[in-house]
Amino acid sequence: MKCVVIGSGSWGTALAQVLCDNKVHVTLWGKNKNEVEDVELHHQNSRFFPGVVLHPNLHATTDLTIVKDADVIVLSVPTIAVEEMCRKIDTLLEKSVIIVNTAKGFHPETNERMSEVIRHAMTHLSSVVSLIGPSHAEEVVLRMLTTICAVSQNKEDAICIQKLFSNDYLRVYRGHDEIGSEIGVALKNAIAVASGVLSGVGYGDNTKAALITRGLTEMIRYGVAMGGKQETFMGLTGIGDLIVTCTSKHSRNFQAGYEIGIHNSADYFWKNNKKTVEGVRTAKVVHEVAQKRGIEMPIINEIYKVLYEGKKPKDSAQELMLRDLKEEM
Amino acid sequence: MKCVVIGSGSWGTALAQVLCDNKVHVTLWGKNKNEVEDVELHHQNSRFFPGVVLHPNLHATTDLTIVKDADVIVLSVPTIAVEEMCRKIDTLLEKSVIIVNTAKGFHPETNERMSEVIRHAMTHLSSVVSLIGPSHAEEVVLRMLTTICAVSQNKEDAICIQKLFSNDYLRVYRGHDEIGSEIGVALKNAIAVASGVLSGVGYGDNTKAALITRGLTEMIRYGVAMGGKQETFMGLTGIGDLIVTCTSKHSRNFQAGYEIGIHNSADYFWKNNKKTVEGVRTAKVVHEVAQKRGIEMPIINEIYKVLYEGKKPKDSAQELMLRDLKEEM
Repeated sequence: MKCVVIGSGSWGTALAQVLCDNKVHVTLWGKNKNEVEDVELHHQNSRFFPGVVLHPNLHATTDLTIVKDADVIVLSVPTIAVEEMCRKIDTLLEKSVIIVNTAKGFHPETNERMSEVIRHAMTHLSSVVSLIGPSHAEEVVLRMLTTICAVSQNKEDAICIQKLFSNDYLRVYRGHDEIGSEIGVALKNAIAVASGVLSGVGYGDNTKAALITRGLTEMIRYGVAMGGKQETFMGLTGIGDLIVTCTSKHSRNFQAGYEIGIHNSADYFWKNNKKTVEGVRTAKVVHEVAQKRGIEMPIINEIYKVLYEGKKPKDSAQELMLRDLKEEM
Repeated sequence: MKCVVIGSGSWGTALAQVLCDNKVHVTLWGKNKNEVEDVELHHQNSRFFPGVVLHPNLHATTDLTIVKDADVIVLSVPTIAVEEMCRKIDTLLEKSVIIVNTAKGFHPETNERMSEVIRHAMTHLSSVVSLIGPSHAEEVVLRMLTTICAVSQNKEDAICIQKLFSNDYLRVYRGHDEIGSEIGVALKNAIAVASGVLSGVGYGDNTKAALITRGLTEMIRYGVAMGGKQETFMGLTGIGDLIVTCTSKHSRNFQAGYEIGIHNSADYFWKNNKKTVEGVRTAKVVHEVAQKRGIEMPIINEIYKVLYEGKKPKDSAQELMLRDLKEEM
C-alpha cells in the first residue's frame, strides 16, 4: 500500500510521521520548497515543530506526480484549497484512490462539507474517509497518546484507514455519521474563536465552561437540522474536539479569538493574521446557512458580528452571557 | 427574607458575598473561629482568598442558633458533614426552610444523593434546591461572570432561589432533573481526578479531551441507569461542570489527581492531603454501586484501583487509553 500526504503543514507532517512509524510506504508532498527541503534533508519541519527531529524515513517532495500510483491520498490542506487540489490530483490519477480528508470546515462558496467537495471534484475515487477528532499536531508529532475517528460512508475503507494509522499512541476509532462528524469538527472551530474572545476580554474558567456547554447545544442544533445524529456530538468529533480546541494553548482558533478579545476589536486580526484560521471562515458559512434556514445560533451570530460587522467583543460577550433568567433546556 | 450560609469555606464565603451584593439579609456561619473572625473583623477569608477584600456587610458567626428564624439555609459543607449538620439545624428550627444544597457527592454509607440525605435528615423542610454548576469560588468571589443551575423538584422554590442569587455576574438557570444533575456534578469530580492523573503521568491535551469525552459517556450511562435524563448531562450540571473541573487550575480534584500522577502512586495523596477532595470519595461510592448493578464504568474502575488498591497510575492510564480498535459508539 502506497500513501501520499498532501500538505507539509503541521498536521500533514505529523500524520506522515505516523505512517512512517507504522512502516507504511509514504511520501509527504508540499508546495513550499523550503519546508520540503527541511523535511527531506534535515528531518525536521522547523516552521511548525522547532527542535523536533522527525522520523528518518520520512521523505518529502514538491513533485505532485508522486500521487500517480498512490492507493491512499491524505489531504492536509486548508478548506479553501481542497477543491482545487482534488481537481489537480484527479488529472494525475490512473486508478481510484481512498482520499483521507483532514480539513475541518466548509466550502466558502457552496457551503458543502469537505467529503461532499471531494466527491464532486474527483472521478478516480474509491471513497472519502475523514480522519478527525481532538488531535493537536504538536502532540501527535511527539507521539503523545491521541484518539481520533475515521469517519466514512464506506465501512470497508474506514476499517482500512483505521488499521493504517493506528498504533500505540494514535488510537483510531470508526464512525459512520459523516454529516454529524464533519459538522461537529467544523463548528467547534468557530466556537473556539468565541471562547478565545471571552478569555481575551477577561472572562474566566466558569464563563468558558458555560460557553462550551452552550456551544455544544448550538452544534447539535445545527448538525441535527442538517441531517447529523445527535449522539455523534457526544463523541470525539463533537464534544471531544470542542474541548481540546477551546481549552488548549495549541489552538489557532482560540488564539485568534484571544487576540481579538485582548484588542477588543477584530481589526488587529484582519491586519496581522497570516495563518489559516478555519473557525473564522466557518462562522461566516454557518451564520449564512443558519439565517436562511431559521436555525437559532446565538454564539455563532455574535462571533460573526465581531468578525465581519465590527461589533466590539466586549459588547458581544456581555450580550451573549447576559440573557433573561429561564430554565436551562 | 433571611438567609444563613453554613460553612465558611471558599464556596460558602463566595455565595454569602453574592447575597450581600444582592442586598439580601445574610449571615455566614463557620465552625472555625479564626476563619469567622477573619471575615467578621477583617472582611477577608485569607485561607481561601488571599488578598481579596470581601463585601463590608458580610457578617459571620460561630453561633449556630442564628438559623432559628432563617427562611433559606445554604449548606456549604463537605458531603460527609451534610447529614449531621442537617440534624443539628433541624433541632434548632421552628418553621420550615428552603435548604440550598451545594455539596457534590454521595452519602459515604447509604450512597444517597445529597437531596435525599437532606430530606431524610430534616423535618422542618419546605424543599431542597441544589445550586450547582461550573463555578469555581475563586472566580465568583471576584465577581467574574458565572452560570449555574438551581435544581429542585419544587418549581416555586427553585424560582425563589434563582431570583435570590441572580445578578449581573451570577446567572442562575433552573433545572428539574434532580437525579441527573446531582449525579452529573458528583461524578465529574471523580473523572477530574482521573484527568489530573493523566496529566501528572505526562499525557497531553489530546488525551485529556479523549478522557473527558469518554468520562461524559460514563456519567450518562450511570445517570440514566439511576433514573436521570440524558439531556441533563448536556447542560451546565453535566458537560459544563465536567469541563471546568477537568481543565481548570482551581480544581482540587484535578490537582489531587495530578499529584498522584506525578508521584505515580496514590500513597503521597493519602499521606499529605488535608483538603476535602470529593472525587476521591465519589469514585468509591460509584464503583461499588456500578459493580452491584452491572454498569460498565472503565474510567471510574481504574481510578478506584489507583486510589484504593495501590495500582500504579501509569499502568492504569495505559490500560484505560489502549483498548481494542472498534467503532466509537
